[in-house]
Amino acid sequence: MNERLFGFVGGDSGAWEVTQMRAVKGAPLPEVKTIAILNGFSIQGHHAHWVLRGVTSNERYVTKEEKSRLIATQEGLGRTESTLAALIPIRKNASWWLLTQEERREILEERSHHIQIGMAYLPAIARRLYHCRDIGTPEPFDFLTWFEFSPSDASQFDDLVAQLRTTHEWSYIDHEIDIRLARKNG
Amino acid sequence: MNERLFGFVGGDSGAWEVTQMRAVKGAPLPEVKTIAILNGFSIQGHHAHWVLRGVTSNERYVTKEEKSRLIATQEGLGRTESTLAALIPIRKNASWWLLTQEERREILEERSHHIQIGMAYLPAIARRLYHCRDIGTPEPFDFLTWFEFSPSDASQFDDLVAQLRTTHEWSYIDHEIDIRLARKNG
Repeated sequence: MNERLFGFVGGDSGAWEVTQMRAVKGAPLPEVKTIAILNGFSIQGHHAHWVLRGVTSNERYVTKEEKSRLIATQEGLGRTESTLAALIPIRKNASWWLLTQEERREILEERSHHIQIGMAYLPAIARRLYHCRDIGTPEPFDFLTWFEFSPSDASQFDDLVAQLRTTHEWSYIDHEIDIRLARKNG
Repeated sequence: MNERLFGFVGGDSGAWEVTQMRAVKGAPLPEVKTIAILNGFSIQGHHAHWVLRGVTSNERYVTKEEKSRLIATQEGLGRTESTLAALIPIRKNASWWLLTQEERREILEERSHHIQIGMAYLPAIARRLYHCRDIGTPEPFDFLTWFEFSPSDASQFDDLVAQLRTTHEWSYIDHEIDIRLARKNG
């Protein structure tokens, strides 16, 4: 398997317990008790209600200067104190995908300040983006973003997603699920 | 299956006969007699020596103005007179993928004139790009480009690929195969 491929397995036996699931836009996902994150993965042996797949990939939008600032400021996943998490699968509509790269960058950053908003919550809110649009399987979403943070930063995370959802970029999103999780024994 | 997923199946029974195969850089692919192009595909029932998979996707580099000119000038695949074709799988090295979008665009177009060079051979040389880097299976290449042209434009195609191979962009390519084909009963 592609070593950058990951599966988010909704079921009964994952390491992260689902505390809340809600459809922000579009159809809901069936409710599950837990999510397991598997790398390069096979779902054999997992009692899965659903699986969302995505790959980590190269940067699409950040400038060199933004990339340097991100690298200097962000922290990785897996911090001991990050006992809370969120998985936010989104799909963008056909109009978005017909735009050129420079038009998408213009909307994403110059107009909607997506990178800048995310940067303001670093290092508290750690994140990793997974791309699903161009993998061979018919995935229901274009992106999965996984966030990790400590309980004391949970309200900051609420502010972050609330800010993003008011942007012009978000008008291109036609399906979004918001899943909140807590690490088991966390 | 993802309807944008295609497989290039190297075997004995495809619609395109292989007339020449050569490794421009890196290891060669095993020689095959034919290539079949299958959409949204399963390889069951095909006697395949190898399969290269890729997806068609959104534009990554062209500006709006370049996109308009491409749409106005290019012709589609499947023209009756396009009895010759080429399949050129390439892989770019890790340094390329660590660059930001703007650095990649700078090298690809401002410095190497990739889009401008391709445009000069329109509509004679029709092309379609398939992306393989972000699909779930471990693909040996990052891109597959399929070209179609008439026998009278074959030398133009040779000029096109020769020009591209002298560019700075091509210094990032660490694996390239050049496969030439003729349509059976073409």
